[in-house]
Amino acid sequence: MRDTGVASDDDWRAYLTDLDKLREELRTFADVRDWDQFHSPKNLAMALSVEAGELLERFQWLSDAQSRALPPDALDAVSDEVADVLLYLIRLSDKLGIDPLAAAKRKLVTNDVKYPADKARGSSKKYTEL
Amino acid sequence: MRDTGVASDDDWRAYLTDLDKLREELRTFADVRDWDQFHSPKNLAMALSVEAGELLERFQWLSDAQSRALPPDALDAVSDEVADVLLYLIRLSDKLGIDPLAAAKRKLVTNDVKYPADKARGSSKKYTEL
Amino acid sequence: MRDTGVASDDDWRAYLTDLDKLREELRTFADVRDWDQFHSPKNLAMALSVEAGELLERFQWLSDAQSRALPPDALDAVSDEVADVLLYLIRLSDKLGIDPLAAAKRKLVTNDVKYPADKARGSSKKYTEL
Amino acid sequence: MRDTGVASDDDWRAYLTDLDKLREELRTFADVRDWDQFHSPKNLAMALSVEAGELLERFQWLSDAQSRALPPDALDAVSDEVADVLLYLIRLSDKLGIDPLAAAKRKLVTNDVKYPADKARGSSKKYTEL
Repeated sequence: MRDTGVASDDDWRAYLTDLDKLREELRTFADVRDWDQFHSPKNLAMALSVEAGELLERFQWLSDAQSRALPPDALDAVSDEVADVLLYLIRLSDKLGIDPLAAAKRKLVTNDVKYPADKARGSSKKYTEL
Repeated sequence: MRDTGVASDDDWRAYLTDLDKLREELRTFADVRDWDQFHSPKNLAMALSVEAGELLERFQWLSDAQSRALPPDALDAVSDEVADVLLYLIRLSDKLGIDPLAAAKRKLVTNDVKYPADKARGSSKKYTEL
Repeated sequence: MRDTGVASDDDWRAYLTDLDKLREELRTFADVRDWDQFHSPKNLAMALSVEAGELLERFQWLSDAQSRALPPDALDAVSDEVADVLLYLIRLSDKLGIDPLAAAKRKLVTNDVKYPADKARGSSKKYTEL
Repeated sequence: MRDTGVASDDDWRAYLTDLDKLREELRTFADVRDWDQFHSPKNLAMALSVEAGELLERFQWLSDAQSRALPPDALDAVSDEVADVLLYLIRLSDKLGIDPLAAAKRKLVTNDVKYPADKARGSSKKYTEL
């Protein structure tokens, strides 16, 4: 596609967002295991929270500076936890009919208004305190 | 593009993954606010965990069945929290040079091996107990 | 003491709350390991959150009914995570000069007002929605 | 009692651990509101995790040094969250028949063995890496 500007079938599939594709694969993954019975939004939100805790654990006791310069094995471990969070986020969104990208874009616009650059510059205060 | 099969500039931008675009927008968002100083991976992992807790709160005290049939206002609130988790996940990944989609795909393959369909079918056991 | 009504030295130590004693033991524990440098309230709040996630993990995928009837080994595992949360809670409180029992008692009074029995009966709504 | 060494009835109640008393009060609190139906261990573990997230939020974006020197209003807010975590921890323990103090004491002994002072001194490594 880069050369011709024309989308082949493969390109077309690529054009579908990667999140869409992961969503489909997760559906199949759950279907063939008959796991839909466990995948209530409540349970998926729990699972996501558990994974967020495991991600957090990777930074436990590290200084800020250390967390900015992870050695390769620590980085791999963090990647794994990032993956788990993302997979549950996609699955939860799917079960609820939420488009996570659209939600994120909307939120970014909201945050842009909540935190005007001139007021928020260099400050870590919550918008309610700016 | 759907009609012609030819990618315009806009389409081309669309062809870049949406996560990539969100990553860029989050960079700009932090840059203009001089927030990089706060965005250590450690702090971002904390922020993500806080948001995962807020997401979880939306399901607190609900039954499984209730969580599968959220009323519109509850669904909007959940969408907002999903957005927050995704935004911090993208930002954290960016600061660490992690590709979250690639990590998720790798993890899905790992999970496929860990949880063989015939063994895992209808079971919520951890792979270590299958 | 039960017989005489008179507190011996041992009884007196018993009279000090168990939380106070745990607090002292945790201080010693950290001191002899030179861990005070890691035990900032921020880091301890992170550690507590990680342990809360591990506690939550023990209930992942369980039904409500299953969670009310844990087999002995699962109960032991939950006890261990409860212990971790409590230890970090005591340690965090100590570093901040918070009396967790007094705080809990105050909160119980607040909750009693927030959730009047006649309005809250049988409802899982948040007080803001009662 | 401090003067006479003799326990009055009130003292005797005081002699019962404060955690025991809070447990009893939480039972009554839930009973009169008919909340036992919501207080499955699974739901209580979720609630505890949500509160741990709110506690964590109080330290978000703070430096280590800032977290060691909270202003009074921030300290009050942290106290409130500490209280919430403790109340759910007591309630969860009660529903499962766990003695949280006994569990914490056992864990402290375990940790003492896991982290020998001479090896762990000044190190934030996990015991598996010491």
